[in-house]
Amino acid sequence: MTGPVVALAGGTGGAKLAAGLAAVLPRDELVVVANTGDDTEIYGAHVSPDPDLVSFWLADRIDARGWGLDGDTFHVMDGLRELGVEVWFNLGDRDLAYGIERARRLAAGDRLTDALADLGRALGLPARVLPMSDDPVRTHVRAQGREWPFQEFMIVGRAAGPVEGLEFRGAESARPTPEVLEAVASARAIVIGPSNPLLSIGPILALPGLREALGAAAAPVVAVSPIVGGQVVKGPTAAFLEWAGQPLSAGGVAALYGDLLDGIVSDEPLGPEAPQIPVHTADLLMSDGPSRERLARATLAFAATLAG
Amino acid sequence: MTGPVVALAGGTGGAKLAAGLAAVLPRDELVVVANTGDDTEIYGAHVSPDPDLVSFWLADRIDARGWGLDGDTFHVMDGLRELGVEVWFNLGDRDLAYGIERARRLAAGDRLTDALADLGRALGLPARVLPMSDDPVRTHVRAQGREWPFQEFMIVGRAAGPVEGLEFRGAESARPTPEVLEAVASARAIVIGPSNPLLSIGPILALPGLREALGAAAAPVVAVSPIVGGQVVKGPTAAFLEWAGQPLSAGGVAALYGDLLDGIVSDEPLGPEAPQIPVHTADLLMSDGPSRERLARATLAFAATLAG
Repeated sequence: MTGPVVALAGGTGGAKLAAGLAAVLPRDELVVVANTGDDTEIYGAHVSPDPDLVSFWLADRIDARGWGLDGDTFHVMDGLRELGVEVWFNLGDRDLAYGIERARRLAAGDRLTDALADLGRALGLPARVLPMSDDPVRTHVRAQGREWPFQEFMIVGRAAGPVEGLEFRGAESARPTPEVLEAVASARAIVIGPSNPLLSIGPILALPGLREALGAAAAPVVAVSPIVGGQVVKGPTAAFLEWAGQPLSAGGVAALYGDLLDGIVSDEPLGPEAPQIPVHTADLLMSDGPSRERLARATLAFAATLAG
Repeated sequence: MTGPVVALAGGTGGAKLAAGLAAVLPRDELVVVANTGDDTEIYGAHVSPDPDLVSFWLADRIDARGWGLDGDTFHVMDGLRELGVEVWFNLGDRDLAYGIERARRLAAGDRLTDALADLGRALGLPARVLPMSDDPVRTHVRAQGREWPFQEFMIVGRAAGPVEGLEFRGAESARPTPEVLEAVASARAIVIGPSNPLLSIGPILALPGLREALGAAAAPVVAVSPIVGGQVVKGPTAAFLEWAGQPLSAGGVAALYGDLLDGIVSDEPLGPEAPQIPVHTADLLMSDGPSRERLARATLAFAATLAG
């Protein structure tokens, strides 16, 4: 098959796998569809944490702290603190610049897709990073007895469960972009990255028509499980699987995606209660470039066996 | 007389004199009323160039370049340039932080007066810096055959004349703040700083009721001429005096202020065509702390002779 490889990505797991895929694919053959449910407006900026995380990983510019640009400074945050602002959402100076310009473009009526493409050009990305939608979708979490906008839940609420609810505000009236639908329709493989299936991939799948588009695509849809050695590498996946009544396992993840999947890459066999889909067993830990590339190659090879 | 010394200030001349006045007055006996006609919304921030210029001078934090905070970095501007933004309005990272928080407060319905007070506290200012109004007033200049918002005229248009018009948009429906009116009414001296009388002081005087309040104040009103040795130290004062049909002289400045003035500090006698008001002759060049303090002392002493 020809056509691009399409990767759905949310947080760090998806971004790392995207970096691995970009490394093993010819330039511009990867299209990453990124979750925008975590987007937030703050400091006069429009911050798109997941698309930017993917972009920084693809540019090999992710900072060692796990977010933001390598070597970025935090002088604006320092200035806010001087004024007595409680800086709960930390953002580097260059990161802020990207968000400020993005806010300006959106206010001028431009599309988030085009604003992200500018960042992609500026960073010289080897792949396209598409927001799932140009329409605002905002993830809200109910936990610890209250309702949290996503970033506040993650940072102020320290992502602590038990989770009591999950809402993607605006999703019902949002649309996947034409670029996303075109990429999905023309893809040779569709990879759901090892991100939180509910929190990170959930908003993408909540867009009207996107699940159907994935189902109608000629390409196989393969998920890479975010459960590594029975554990979650990063983020609050366990609490969300528990809320969804699923075990912390590749089987639980597969059950959440349901008939969307043609196969799953996991480091464990799926239990008898899980959907009976093809499983490719692989080492899922992406601790460095070679391990990311190895997993990317294995995923693509597995998808190729499921194609047609 | 008791009560504060009130200084009206626009650009650098007024800010320098304010620094001199603060140095020779007891703490908190100086109230600076700053022009907000140059305010601008950019990069998601509310930038108040004149109030901030005054604040940075009062804090002894003005950078050697003549604007902005000493030692400030410009990483956000660098980030904007990375995205291909033409950065015509340069703003340091800390400066931007102040403007971002100010924009947030104003959007939340807070007063500019209170936002500036926060900056004053953060910088540990020895004097109060009040915006002339909490209502938006925006200076527009007609020059070079087109209409310019003030900052674009100064930076993009390089403040080039001939000037064809000057407008303070919003002034007719703006009001001086209660703090400004109270300071003027209770003042023991009112000093109009050596700023452009049309561009920097003009917006303050254009506020309905402020000219009347200055006239009704018990305190003498003394201007310090911005013309030093027959020249303008900084800024486009010459082109504006020419547009207003006034000579580039203390007499021209006095004529513009008209019967508002009880006296003027100048380094030259006023010509026979100028208003016949008391003149105090002094060296107007404020090249360092001692010269600023000397001019401040001379101005206050002169005002004292005009009081009562």
